[in-house]
Amino acid sequence: MERDQAEELRALQDTLYFIGGKWRVPVINSLCNGNRRFREIERSIPGITTRMLSKELKDMEMNKLVTRMVYNDTPVLVEYEPTPYCRTFGKIIQEMINWGRDHRKKVIQKK
Amino acid sequence: MERDQAEELRALQDTLYFIGGKWRVPVINSLCNGNRRFREIERSIPGITTRMLSKELKDMEMNKLVTRMVYNDTPVLVEYEPTPYCRTFGKIIQEMINWGRDHRKKVIQKK
Repeated sequence: MERDQAEELRALQDTLYFIGGKWRVPVINSLCNGNRRFREIERSIPGITTRMLSKELKDMEMNKLVTRMVYNDTPVLVEYEPTPYCRTFGKIIQEMINWGRDHRKKVIQKK
Repeated sequence: MERDQAEELRALQDTLYFIGGKWRVPVINSLCNGNRRFREIERSIPGITTRMLSKELKDMEMNKLVTRMVYNDTPVLVEYEPTPYCRTFGKIIQEMINWGRDHRKKVIQKK
């Protein structure tokens, strides 16, 4: 079967659009690592501001990447649960981690 | 071995930083698909402007992702050759294409 380069590019750009921005991928990664509470997620990503994380989680809730669970405890407990859809990014994230690691090794070797 | 989440996040953020922006990944993909001349690359990516592609190729040359080859023909022929380093993004790009394809199927099913 001949490869359809235009179709491949569309698929690629859809993905890039979806994971665009600086924080989407680190937040997905943090949720997949088991972090559930706002402060937990925030602490796991150095440099993210409360405002950015709040915006990101709202956007992700709208895009069905995360479910916001409110438990009527005292005080109220709020947890962010990654959806199965969110976990579909696992392979991309793993390849990105692998690449970043190899890159760092190469940079260190050059020094 | 225990997973070092901080190290993983650093690797992930290095990669995101490197492939940041809207056009870097589509340009790498185009080069890996065999496009070599400026106009070929430009035509293969709908929406990219001459100015953006020019800037992207200059940045990629500085980052050793691409080699600019000038052949003293008449008229002068200029080709952009992806480096082996550029090709290390192959797996990430393939996973992104896979994800975008699955995503599109799901969106179509819902309609």
